[in-house]
Amino acid sequence: MSCFYLFLPGAGYHSTQKEDAYVKLCKSTCLKMSHLLKKGWGAVECVTEAVKLLEDAVLTNAGMGSNLNLSGSVECDASIMEGRKLMFGAVGAISGVKNPVEVSATLVNRQLGDKLSLGRLHPSVLVGDGAKQWAEENGIKTLETRHLITDDAQKTYQNHKRKLDIVNERDASKKMKLSEQRDDNKEYNGVQEEEKIQDTVGAIVMDTSGNIATAVSSGGISLKQPGRLGPAATYGAGCWAYNQRPGKAGVGTSTSGSGEHIMKTLLARESALSIQREDNASLGLSNCFKNNFLESEFLEEEKDKLAGVLALKQNDGDTVEVLWGHTTDSMCVGYMSSSLKKPKVVMSRLPEGGIPGKSFTMSGVSI
Amino acid sequence: MSCFYLFLPGAGYHSTQKEDAYVKLCKSTCLKMSHLLKKGWGAVECVTEAVKLLEDAVLTNAGMGSNLNLSGSVECDASIMEGRKLMFGAVGAISGVKNPVEVSATLVNRQLGDKLSLGRLHPSVLVGDGAKQWAEENGIKTLETRHLITDDAQKTYQNHKRKLDIVNERDASKKMKLSEQRDDNKEYNGVQEEEKIQDTVGAIVMDTSGNIATAVSSGGISLKQPGRLGPAATYGAGCWAYNQRPGKAGVGTSTSGSGEHIMKTLLARESALSIQREDNASLGLSNCFKNNFLESEFLEEEKDKLAGVLALKQNDGDTVEVLWGHTTDSMCVGYMSSSLKKPKVVMSRLPEGGIPGKSFTMSGVSI
Repeated sequence: MSCFYLFLPGAGYHSTQKEDAYVKLCKSTCLKMSHLLKKGWGAVECVTEAVKLLEDAVLTNAGMGSNLNLSGSVECDASIMEGRKLMFGAVGAISGVKNPVEVSATLVNRQLGDKLSLGRLHPSVLVGDGAKQWAEENGIKTLETRHLITDDAQKTYQNHKRKLDIVNERDASKKMKLSEQRDDNKEYNGVQEEEKIQDTVGAIVMDTSGNIATAVSSGGISLKQPGRLGPAATYGAGCWAYNQRPGKAGVGTSTSGSGEHIMKTLLARESALSIQREDNASLGLSNCFKNNFLESEFLEEEKDKLAGVLALKQNDGDTVEVLWGHTTDSMCVGYMSSSLKKPKVVMSRLPEGGIPGKSFTMSGVSI
Repeated sequence: MSCFYLFLPGAGYHSTQKEDAYVKLCKSTCLKMSHLLKKGWGAVECVTEAVKLLEDAVLTNAGMGSNLNLSGSVECDASIMEGRKLMFGAVGAISGVKNPVEVSATLVNRQLGDKLSLGRLHPSVLVGDGAKQWAEENGIKTLETRHLITDDAQKTYQNHKRKLDIVNERDASKKMKLSEQRDDNKEYNGVQEEEKIQDTVGAIVMDTSGNIATAVSSGGISLKQPGRLGPAATYGAGCWAYNQRPGKAGVGTSTSGSGEHIMKTLLARESALSIQREDNASLGLSNCFKNNFLESEFLEEEKDKLAGVLALKQNDGDTVEVLWGHTTDSMCVGYMSSSLKKPKVVMSRLPEGGIPGKSFTMSGVSI
C-alpha cells in the first residue's frame, strides 16, 4: 500500500518574504518522512517525528519559538490521535518540554499498551505541572522554559505587551473613547499579521499498513492567559483520525487557526465526519466549513471566523484524496506519497476579493 | 414559563446506608434553588449556585471532599455551558479554589460580556496554576488546598495508596503471576465500590425566561495522575446546553461516570444531539447509550462502560421532559419545577440481572 504524509505549518497570514522558508521546511520534513516510512516506521511514530521537526523549527509557533503568554513564558498544547484503536493523547499548557508532541505520543502508546496496575485507566489528557512531571517520569527530555524562547518571540512579546499596557492604562483612566479603542484593536491585529503569527502546526500520516495518525502542536496565541487550553489540546478540535473499516472510509484531519472558534465547533472531528459521510470528499469539507463553521450558531457572536483544515481520505479501492480548505488569508501545505517522486508544497491563498474570516477556499488532489 | 432544576450527585454505586444522605442533599439543594429562581435568578447563576452546594457537601467527589490524586493532593475539574449564546467555560486540574464551578461561571460570563482589550478573545478553558491565578485576579476565593481534604478522603487515599504500593512492588520484583494481578484489580474495584467513590456532580437549570444552563464538577478518580484532565473540564463531554430555537428543541445534559469513556464518546454533546433529533426524548437517550456508548467503536477496548446522563428537553408548546439513564449500578437524581410543590428525588438502580458497565436503564417524566 502507498503511504502519504502531509504537513500543515499553520494557517493564518504568510508573507511572501517568508514563503520560501515555509516551503523549504515542508520539503525537508517530507523528505525525512519518506526515509522513515521506507524504514518501516508506523503512523504514530512518523506523525510524532514530523511534528517534532515542525516544533524544532523556530519559524513555527510550536515548541521552540512559540508565542509568549501574558507572563512572558511559553506554554504549549499538543495532541495525537490514531485511527486503529481510536486513541487520543494530549498535553495542555505544558512548560519546559522541548517537544510537547512527544508527550502526547507517549500518552497514546500507553493507552495502546497494558492497563495500569489496579485496573486504573491511563490518562488521555495531562496539563500543566503534572504533565511535565509525567513527561520526566516517562523519560522525555525536559529543559528550562527560557530555552524555548527565541529572540524573535521575545521581541514580538515586548511589542505586544507595550501596546497592551498602553491600552489598559488608558482604559483604567477611563479617558479612552470607543473609537480610539477600535483603532488600537486594528493596530494590534495589524501587528499580528505583519509579524506572521501563526497558530497550530499539524501533520497527517498514513503508513504502509493503512494506519492513519494525526497530530497538532501549538504555542497558542500571543499574550494568552497563562493556563489557557487551546484546540491543540482539545479532543475533537485539533486533530482526528479514523482508519478505513468495512463500509467506512479512512480519514484524518488536522486544524489550525483561531483557537476558540476551532474548539467551539470541534472542527477536526466535524470535518472528518463530514468528509467521511459524503462520497465526494471536497463536498464534505466545504459543507463542514459552510454549515459547521462560517454559519455555525456556535460562532454567531464572532465577526471573523478563522481556520484551516488539512485532510486525507482513503476511499474503497485504496484511492487517496488529500485536501485542504481555509478561511484564513493563507495556508501552507506540504504533501508526498510513495508514488510521488518529489514533495509537493502549496501556499494556498484566498482568491482575489476573498475576505479572511468570511470567505472560504479549498483545493485538493486524488493520488 | 415554568422553571426546572435537576441535580445529579454522581453516578456509580450508592450504598443503601448512604442513600438517605444523598436524598437529603438533593432535597435541600432543590429547595434553595426554588427560592433563588423565585427571586428571579438566571440559569447560569442558579446552576452555579446548585453545583456550589454540591461541591461544598463533603459527601460528593467535587470541591470539598474530592478524591485525592496520586500525590495526595486535590485537583478539580468543572465546567458550565449556557444555551442562549452557547458559551462554555471550564477549569481543569485546579487546586486551591473552594468552588471550581465559580471559576467556570466567571469564564462564561466574561465571554458573554465585552471582548478583552486589543481585540483578544476571552479564554474558554483554563488549567492548573494559571487557572488559579486567573481566579484570584477575578475575585474568586482561594485557599490552601489542604483545606479541601476531608478525613474520609485522606483515609481512602491511604488505603488505595497502600494497595498500589504493594502491587507496584510485586510488579517490580516480577514475581507476580497474571492471575494474582487480576485478583488485585478486583480487590481495588471492590474497595472503590464499597467506599462509594462517585465521580462528577452536575446540574441542569431552565429559568423562567427559558434559558438553559448546565454544569458539572469533579475531583476526578482516586489516585489519578496529577495534571489529568477529566470530562468535567472537557467541551462536549461533561455538560451541554442549547436553548429552544425555531424548529429545534431546547436541551440540557449533564454526565457522570468513567472519565475517559465519557470523553472519548463526547457523551454530553452526543446525548443532547440525539435527544434533540428524536421526537421522543427517551428514544434519543437510549439510542445514544446503545450506539454511541455501549456499542461505540471508541470504547471497543473497554470491558465495562460506566456512565450516567441526566437530561432535560423542552419541546414546542413548552412541555418539558426530564430523563436520566445510566449503565452504572446506581444514579441519584433530584428534580423540581415551579409546578411541583415538593422536590422529587429518585435513586435509580439497574434492574435485577442488570450488569454494571454492560446494561442500561432509563426513566423520566414529562412535566
